[in-house]
Amino acid sequence: MKNLSEKVAELSKRRGFFFQSSEAYGGVSGFQTYGPEGAELKRKIENSWRETFSRALGHREIEAPTVMPEPVFEASGHLDGFDDMIIECPECGTSTRADHLVEGNTDIEEAEGFDTDQIEALIKEHDLICPSCGENLSDVEVEDFNLMFETSIGPGSGQTGYLRPETAQGIFVEFPRLKDYMRGQLPFGITQIGKAYRNEISPRKGLVRTREFTQAELEHFVDPEENEPNLDRVKDVELKLYPVSEQEKDDGEYIYATVEEAVEENIVEVDWVAYYLGIAKKWYERIGVDMDRFRFRQHQEGERAHYATDCWDAESDVGSSEEDWLEIAGFAYRGCYDLTKHRDHSGDEKDFQIFKEYDEPKTVEKNTVNPDMGFLGPEFGDKAGEIKQELERIAEEEPEAFEADKIFVEIEDETYSVPVEKCNFKVEEVTETGEHVVPHVAEPSFGVDRTVYTLLVHAYDEDEVDDEERTVLRLSEKAAPTEVAVFPLMDKEGLGEKARDVADKLRSEGFAVKYDDTGNIGKRYRRQDEVGTPFCVTIDYETLEDDGKVTVRDRDSTEQERVNVEDLASYLA
Amino acid sequence: MKNLSEKVAELSKRRGFFFQSSEAYGGVSGFQTYGPEGAELKRKIENSWRETFSRALGHREIEAPTVMPEPVFEASGHLDGFDDMIIECPECGTSTRADHLVEGNTDIEEAEGFDTDQIEALIKEHDLICPSCGENLSDVEVEDFNLMFETSIGPGSGQTGYLRPETAQGIFVEFPRLKDYMRGQLPFGITQIGKAYRNEISPRKGLVRTREFTQAELEHFVDPEENEPNLDRVKDVELKLYPVSEQEKDDGEYIYATVEEAVEENIVEVDWVAYYLGIAKKWYERIGVDMDRFRFRQHQEGERAHYATDCWDAESDVGSSEEDWLEIAGFAYRGCYDLTKHRDHSGDEKDFQIFKEYDEPKTVEKNTVNPDMGFLGPEFGDKAGEIKQELERIAEEEPEAFEADKIFVEIEDETYSVPVEKCNFKVEEVTETGEHVVPHVAEPSFGVDRTVYTLLVHAYDEDEVDDEERTVLRLSEKAAPTEVAVFPLMDKEGLGEKARDVADKLRSEGFAVKYDDTGNIGKRYRRQDEVGTPFCVTIDYETLEDDGKVTVRDRDSTEQERVNVEDLASYLA
Repeated sequence: MKNLSEKVAELSKRRGFFFQSSEAYGGVSGFQTYGPEGAELKRKIENSWRETFSRALGHREIEAPTVMPEPVFEASGHLDGFDDMIIECPECGTSTRADHLVEGNTDIEEAEGFDTDQIEALIKEHDLICPSCGENLSDVEVEDFNLMFETSIGPGSGQTGYLRPETAQGIFVEFPRLKDYMRGQLPFGITQIGKAYRNEISPRKGLVRTREFTQAELEHFVDPEENEPNLDRVKDVELKLYPVSEQEKDDGEYIYATVEEAVEENIVEVDWVAYYLGIAKKWYERIGVDMDRFRFRQHQEGERAHYATDCWDAESDVGSSEEDWLEIAGFAYRGCYDLTKHRDHSGDEKDFQIFKEYDEPKTVEKNTVNPDMGFLGPEFGDKAGEIKQELERIAEEEPEAFEADKIFVEIEDETYSVPVEKCNFKVEEVTETGEHVVPHVAEPSFGVDRTVYTLLVHAYDEDEVDDEERTVLRLSEKAAPTEVAVFPLMDKEGLGEKARDVADKLRSEGFAVKYDDTGNIGKRYRRQDEVGTPFCVTIDYETLEDDGKVTVRDRDSTEQERVNVEDLASYLA
Repeated sequence: MKNLSEKVAELSKRRGFFFQSSEAYGGVSGFQTYGPEGAELKRKIENSWRETFSRALGHREIEAPTVMPEPVFEASGHLDGFDDMIIECPECGTSTRADHLVEGNTDIEEAEGFDTDQIEALIKEHDLICPSCGENLSDVEVEDFNLMFETSIGPGSGQTGYLRPETAQGIFVEFPRLKDYMRGQLPFGITQIGKAYRNEISPRKGLVRTREFTQAELEHFVDPEENEPNLDRVKDVELKLYPVSEQEKDDGEYIYATVEEAVEENIVEVDWVAYYLGIAKKWYERIGVDMDRFRFRQHQEGERAHYATDCWDAESDVGSSEEDWLEIAGFAYRGCYDLTKHRDHSGDEKDFQIFKEYDEPKTVEKNTVNPDMGFLGPEFGDKAGEIKQELERIAEEEPEAFEADKIFVEIEDETYSVPVEKCNFKVEEVTETGEHVVPHVAEPSFGVDRTVYTLLVHAYDEDEVDDEERTVLRLSEKAAPTEVAVFPLMDKEGLGEKARDVADKLRSEGFAVKYDDTGNIGKRYRRQDEVGTPFCVTIDYETLEDDGKVTVRDRDSTEQERVNVEDLASYLA
């Protein structure tokens, strides 16, 4: 007896949803190709996401390259920190994720948070062996393996580039231009739907953990002091929440709360996050995710990125008998982390900030120094410049230091003493019209492939029609790749021509149409049931002879109705 | 005075169409980011292409990965042959395209067809120098530089992968599954819109020659003996053709012919190519390419791939004063080249072919041998197996050999002689129900980025409105990224709220809307003119007070009309 995921994989391959790429050459793990049905389903999800998260909210979408230069990932932290722990068997050469090895063979459930030394010690302690050949791995080094795909740009030694591990960096790095485009006004949201790449050590079969995948991300840049989400838009949306407090209990339960309640009772800590949970919930429901197999789960302390104030995942249950939860989206409040990183690494002091004009110019006290370099130079030699800079910093941050006779300046563990009268410390009144601030970022980030997979699993059903078993994908009309199939009863005596005319007409009216004239009608119905086509239209002799009516058959009820061919488009719409 | 391409580049950067990526880190040549306006324009072109070349023709779209394993490109020929010639200056390290160096500094116009030895000789003969530092390059080696980006898949030594240099291979390599999906019936067309990558030695600024770009390709698999294009669909479409015969004349001229005439007079040699030229012409016209700056040019002998029977490019004139033709699409009949290559390299004998059933089973004579291995074994030792295989081949291909007493078999330059009576040669009658054939391929292949660029150049205009110069993009409504802009006269006394309501309502009705309340109305009109927005809607005090009407202003005529706010959506549609 196959389980649900095997059934969906088998159907997907057979019916052109997805399958392993380049199978003729043995395939490469972690790469999947979407066939005609899968590509259409995926595109519909992307368009619907775009409609909901970009257009309807007034955000704008960009398209940045998938190959980006090294300095971007030095800044973002991916070059140093985007690693998995790997252990390579000295005997057979198989590489294994070291934390998974520990989790799978000890009582430890969460090993991802440990460092390489700890994992090495655990492998030694438990005498763990290579899962492929059985070699003892006790004395083998655990190493960090960076998950970015590397390449070289240009001829010769070239320039190092990486396939982006997330679409988000393509937005952050272009903030200076995007800010100008938005004429420096907060808040604004930028979206991107595109490929991202992670060189997984152990990719899984199918769409769940691939090395090339599609993300749909929204970076909403906000002024943390002034901008608030329009909670009214979603306040009554009911959320199924699994907060950390419940996860920690032995009998933890889901909390059902509206967005308004979740905010008021502080179940979701950041309003922006709650706002996007509400919008996402409505969207998932609309495209056909089964709400009984869906939840929002709060990140635990250890799994949350250090910069994220609060983080929730959308998860779908894609298992068969027991619960098997899959992360399909993440909702994080990233604060000013990303823009600050790019500001500091690029050296573009102002470009990664917004100039926020005050309602009224403000007069502020400013502490300044103007050190006597004629004294500092001879006295401190080549340290004079650094001492001046340090004095400026002290003036700004610890002005009370200038109440003493001498200022003590520390540079590289040496202390220098500067007489206060050589510093020219002053308190000045300065009029400022505004200030430069680094915007904060609220980020809903969606995995498109996992959404496709969730829809397939949740739509999969088996029932009986006329005492015959059938497999049917109960996809929502928003998602179904083929919207209508057109059959001639047989391809004879003008039936084929008429059916092709009907199919062409429906196509020109914007429907995704499949024409099929092979096999008996029952078989053709089954084929369409398996790809989730909501309606099948059959042209028979009566259509030609007198009444001009066609038979429209409904996928779910399997009921049939005679419809005038002229009214077909409006009937189907 | 800036030329047209500089003006378009400047506008594109300023108004969020496209700009160099990762500028904060100095940028990387050959990578461009589409800002909000450009991404929308590009998406509209892609959707319109999909509608025309996929949906309306009944073809199906797939989505294959951008990273593919090495064997695919061994088969396709990209690993060996997808090279540019490069010369690296020993003094300053600058890499230059060697053929371009020759073309730019000698009388030779087309150096791309030469081999590295010829180019080396020419560089020596003309004493050519490094364009960057002036070093003499006479004795420097010219090398082949493969244009594919390489990466490593998986941990450890991994598996070599490449970023695909064209989307087409993602279709060809999946032919076995696609054929099954189509239940083995020819003809069928598979499309793909996606990223492709070429590690250009000298990328150009802007969208014309980038290292990462988007292709829209259609591979139409046909039975060369039975399938013909439906020329009726396009027979009256007029084409502006520049065939080789005219290119070779000093005063060569364009030939204006309908698709029907082009086929009948054999100007376009392959009917499938003519068919797609017709469909493409209509599409380009519809999305707003200026037909006075557009032509179809036939490939000359030297530039045509060896497998292509006939090949034409769609070209657009994107220059300012003189003609500056840019290839924006290619139309080739690739025969059975690609599928045969993959059949032979993958060893999947039947998967890259279609089984074509005969109308009636055919009885054919088949020549067989059944060599006596009891003789061959002792006689020829470890060569016996190979000799048997060779005998089978001879029986099939040269049956007359079995009329002699002895059969001479050559294996690795050794000749073996086999008595005819030990071969058991027979002529048998076999009934066959069909045959395996390799489909042929007609391929229209479009560069999406160059189409975007062409539309921008062709839409760019400058005129005067109220004695003031303005820049306006006269984009077609099919292409304009923002469809309608909504302004409150001022963001005061309820005007802003009302305008935001109107904008939200239009968004919910599917329009791409921009809300703008900054600067005076004149300035806001100019901004929208520069991004090609066909309509601007202004909400003023009258709208609030009594008549509920808004002012709708037309981009091209700049004329204004009062429209009832309820009728706005239908008016704009």
